[in-house]
Amino acid sequence: MKTYIGVDLGGTNVRVAKVDEEGNVLQIVKDSTEIGKGTEHVIAKIISLIESIDGYDDCVGIGMGVPGPVDTVNGKMVLATNLPGFEGYPIAKRIEDHFHKPTFVDNDVNVAGMGEAVLGAGKGKGIVYYVTISTGIGGALVVDQHVVAGKNGHAGEIANIIIDRNREKVNYLNVGAVENEASGTAMTRKGKAVFGIDAIAHAGDVFDLARKGNAEALKLCDDMAYDLAIMFSVIAHVVDPEVFVVGGGVMKGKDVFFEKMENYFRNMIHKGMQTVEFKEAELEEPGIIGAAMLPKAYVKD
Amino acid sequence: MKTYIGVDLGGTNVRVAKVDEEGNVLQIVKDSTEIGKGTEHVIAKIISLIESIDGYDDCVGIGMGVPGPVDTVNGKMVLATNLPGFEGYPIAKRIEDHFHKPTFVDNDVNVAGMGEAVLGAGKGKGIVYYVTISTGIGGALVVDQHVVAGKNGHAGEIANIIIDRNREKVNYLNVGAVENEASGTAMTRKGKAVFGIDAIAHAGDVFDLARKGNAEALKLCDDMAYDLAIMFSVIAHVVDPEVFVVGGGVMKGKDVFFEKMENYFRNMIHKGMQTVEFKEAELEEPGIIGAAMLPKAYVKD
Repeated sequence: MKTYIGVDLGGTNVRVAKVDEEGNVLQIVKDSTEIGKGTEHVIAKIISLIESIDGYDDCVGIGMGVPGPVDTVNGKMVLATNLPGFEGYPIAKRIEDHFHKPTFVDNDVNVAGMGEAVLGAGKGKGIVYYVTISTGIGGALVVDQHVVAGKNGHAGEIANIIIDRNREKVNYLNVGAVENEASGTAMTRKGKAVFGIDAIAHAGDVFDLARKGNAEALKLCDDMAYDLAIMFSVIAHVVDPEVFVVGGGVMKGKDVFFEKMENYFRNMIHKGMQTVEFKEAELEEPGIIGAAMLPKAYVKD
Repeated sequence: MKTYIGVDLGGTNVRVAKVDEEGNVLQIVKDSTEIGKGTEHVIAKIISLIESIDGYDDCVGIGMGVPGPVDTVNGKMVLATNLPGFEGYPIAKRIEDHFHKPTFVDNDVNVAGMGEAVLGAGKGKGIVYYVTISTGIGGALVVDQHVVAGKNGHAGEIANIIIDRNREKVNYLNVGAVENEASGTAMTRKGKAVFGIDAIAHAGDVFDLARKGNAEALKLCDDMAYDLAIMFSVIAHVVDPEVFVVGGGVMKGKDVFFEKMENYFRNMIHKGMQTVEFKEAELEEPGIIGAAMLPKAYVKD
């Protein structure tokens, strides 16, 4: 069976795995990124991690997931907030020149969406829109098992979608951007405002209060459900996906908001679009498996 | 040079053209649809129009544009409000069985988007989002010269995108749906409300008042510009297109709203997305040329 190398390069850790074509992780190694020591140090570390994998030289190709928007054609990061020095750095070419194997790089959310589309909850579906709701909100469009990354690698930057123009300005994102209204961070902020700074450490505390029937917490969850429904309806009207695959830590609270969200959503889309499904993300390691699926998708047999 | 047959089947007229691979319309014929006489009558008419084209039998394939969402895989209309009887009718197969040539059908807006992406203002671009602002608002996503029609043919049903949840309910579309707030029909409705029923016959009358410096008309145009900017920003965050190609009759008033719209829009998207361009639609016959481009895109040489 063919195998692929997946690399998950984050600001803190870099992880490398050998993955087979069915998405099984055969071996996985990791190390700290040590970005402070510079790009060449990080590249040398990635190379050494790959070479520590049994039979790495038999792999078809290498795929990398990185945080931030990517110029996938040239294999470079467009923005590298968490990996200073890598903005515009020819990361794919450096790895490809060393191993002489086709190497691809894409944004970590796109890569996770790819993993879910090819092998996870979106397996067998034509148009998959992957959404992760965590501290932030991100998305990825996967059409026929290929990521549509966008002209500037910004496809799926759904955090900035305006779901209500009448909100407070929170940060650099748009007024009423969905990430500032319905992410884990937003729920924490809103929970602190209602229940006090000490009562709420994270969104899960708001969800717990909602589970106990607290009316104010239920209201926060209902608002969140409505805000997310607008976001999902907007995406649906733009690309009409077959399935939304939804992941991220906030889904731990799905029992208090997801059914409400879906009901609102279905009232916001046309009758002919109702076959769209919602599925929860399935892969334990979507980032690294998805990265390994990049060469699977792009290397012609 | 290869040639293709394009069919533009509307509720009132059906037009058929022979188009070469550069998009030149070599011959065009038309007739009234007479949908009241039934589907078989319409099919016989389409066949007869195609057979009236010189050298129709040398064409590579046939493409058809129809009003409403289409199941492109099975070549059937999902909804056929303007073509009663054609919902679920195997229109592509009927034409293909007669001519023994590959036949494709898609929504008329998708087909126009295809025409603009392949041969018009989006020529040579990777990800094109076509938007038509007319009596209604429609869109089409074209990736690498292939239309992404969506699971139910509803990709590009951007009319229903919510740009402000705090508006009046107008019709079956969502409260605050962009088509009810910023289309030609919406501008006519709003103009009548401000200036009186007799003062405004169509959106162009509002634009004329704005050109004369009328403050209320300028306010309506400014609101329209902001509403459209939210719609474009949402689409940009979902798919990050290389270019928006914008067509439709309302663009006749572009001098009073488009620059404002683009300024608002650029303040709603990330710095890294600013390379996105706006171009006005170029083709005189995007519907029929785009229809002819369906076999060009989907028939492998």
